[in-house]
Amino acid sequence: MVNFQNLRTVRWDGESIILIDQTKLPNKLTYLKCKTFNQLVDAIKRMVVRGAPAIGVAAAMGLALVAKNSNANTREELINELNEAGKILRATRPTAVNLFWAIQRILNKANLTLGNVNDLKLAIINEAQIMAEEDIETNRKIGYYGSQLINNGDTILTHCSTGTLATVSYGTALGVIRAAREEGKCIKVIATETRPALQGARLNAFELKEDGFDVTLITDNMVGYVMSKGFVNKVIVGADRITKDGYVFNKIGTYQIAILANKHNIPFYVAAPSSTFDLVSDWHDVMIEERSVDEVVMIKGRRIVPKGVKVLNPAFDITPPDLITALITDKGVLKPPYELSIRNAFS
Amino acid sequence: MVNFQNLRTVRWDGESIILIDQTKLPNKLTYLKCKTFNQLVDAIKRMVVRGAPAIGVAAAMGLALVAKNSNANTREELINELNEAGKILRATRPTAVNLFWAIQRILNKANLTLGNVNDLKLAIINEAQIMAEEDIETNRKIGYYGSQLINNGDTILTHCSTGTLATVSYGTALGVIRAAREEGKCIKVIATETRPALQGARLNAFELKEDGFDVTLITDNMVGYVMSKGFVNKVIVGADRITKDGYVFNKIGTYQIAILANKHNIPFYVAAPSSTFDLVSDWHDVMIEERSVDEVVMIKGRRIVPKGVKVLNPAFDITPPDLITALITDKGVLKPPYELSIRNAFS
Repeated sequence: MVNFQNLRTVRWDGESIILIDQTKLPNKLTYLKCKTFNQLVDAIKRMVVRGAPAIGVAAAMGLALVAKNSNANTREELINELNEAGKILRATRPTAVNLFWAIQRILNKANLTLGNVNDLKLAIINEAQIMAEEDIETNRKIGYYGSQLINNGDTILTHCSTGTLATVSYGTALGVIRAAREEGKCIKVIATETRPALQGARLNAFELKEDGFDVTLITDNMVGYVMSKGFVNKVIVGADRITKDGYVFNKIGTYQIAILANKHNIPFYVAAPSSTFDLVSDWHDVMIEERSVDEVVMIKGRRIVPKGVKVLNPAFDITPPDLITALITDKGVLKPPYELSIRNAFS
Repeated sequence: MVNFQNLRTVRWDGESIILIDQTKLPNKLTYLKCKTFNQLVDAIKRMVVRGAPAIGVAAAMGLALVAKNSNANTREELINELNEAGKILRATRPTAVNLFWAIQRILNKANLTLGNVNDLKLAIINEAQIMAEEDIETNRKIGYYGSQLINNGDTILTHCSTGTLATVSYGTALGVIRAAREEGKCIKVIATETRPALQGARLNAFELKEDGFDVTLITDNMVGYVMSKGFVNKVIVGADRITKDGYVFNKIGTYQIAILANKHNIPFYVAAPSSTFDLVSDWHDVMIEERSVDEVVMIKGRRIVPKGVKVLNPAFDITPPDLITALITDKGVLKPPYELSIRNAFS
């Protein structure tokens, strides 16, 4: 048995970034050691590491790697290198805002740190490690606030992967489920398989099972069925970006789960850290990442779709605020109207 | 290029039943020859042949095979054998009512036919072939009535397989799409992949592509997304059973597509032959077939779900009449209130 609650998805070993290789799960738990910035960029693109908070911290550590490996002689040279690396990182996954937030935080740290090039390097490497620690603390807070909404005996439906494997450790939506159990509540979980990349089946169901939860897997088209049968008391999902008026960008399929929850009068919660909030962008303007059609047509190297058939593969969708019962954050539980509650929480 | 419109999914070659082996699609188009009743029973169970109308005709031909191979000396002995075979067939797939209808029709034919045991054999073999011909004629009628609801330029979302591969030939929901094209209308199709058995990806998208339709495949959790984007004008699905008050039993996922269509003000149509109507049962009493969890945890022989995770696999769900815009049948288009329109159509 793996105990995911004690594992770290992303960590810094002093000279490289150690990632759990999520493309290999659930078959084997292996780690990928990224010694170079390019290896880390590739790991994000290939979803070796995925989940908005985990991507954010991985990106921060990627910049730490740039700093550590840099031959820059001056502050300006190093900051230039970091800016260039930041541009490359931003292009890897355009929807999850934690990535942009993490890059900006490291760049700000570099700019605001006094001293010579070595002082900057140390400050940046240190900041990336602080961000990893903060991620866990943040998830514990999300768990604490969220668990107040959970009743003993609840069955909670989740989508995609939102646990340790989506963060540094503990998780967002899965963190709420962990916290409820830590409070002594008996919780069952229904996990969607989450096509095309199967993060629900391969990652979330695996993490839940290994950590001793009562978990049942369903395909994505069984959500309406389990709700109509009265099997689901609550839905909790994570988020890749939340706008100032409460539009939630999350894994494809989230939007229709929200509609189905609404139809069956089941509360629909979104659990996410402050770093997932984008208080600037208008929701219409956010780009939805389209990923390779190979994710849909191939499963484990085997073709399931005939050649010549067109395929869509949007990685995310948008859930409007009117379908969301509450946002569970490290700043507390935010309720509608979200324009107001988000503004208050972040002011 | 295969031309599915000219193919037959189920046919009788004089001494055996020839089935397109749908477990092998889309990789290769092969046929399974069932020389014995047991081979046919196994083929239905393993979904070598599937789709409510196709299963119905296959079952009728299975009884024809029992008759042909029988050593019975008397009418009574033969009718006894047919009754026993009928019991075995009814247990293969409990939800699709066409199976029960087809068995009953053959048994009635046997009972009502005058003459000796050979007269019965000939009458039964003949009746099964008439049923196959009637299925195509019925689908053409469904297509004719349904195509009146389709506009030039429509994009139609379909679920599961509803074409030639779900019937003897031509199809139900896909038959409507064929008929609309035959009238000169330009139609695009969005096909859901239809987990777990992937009938949408493997069969429907394949049939549509081979027959020259503009088809785009999506995973089952992209339905809300494509509707929210305005990509879908109409939904047409098939059915495995329709009760006298308009409850529709169809492939798992149909119910949630109906909710999503309703939410986005998209007409939701169900296309099915008269043999799919069950005017006797109460919808609460119909059994939903639970199939092997292997269909969910294994894809093409590869495990995608960790061992030890519980899995649900209901093969069908129930769409209530208030979510259905109209029922497209060989007796015409039936509109709400369905209790009345169904009663009138079948009286």
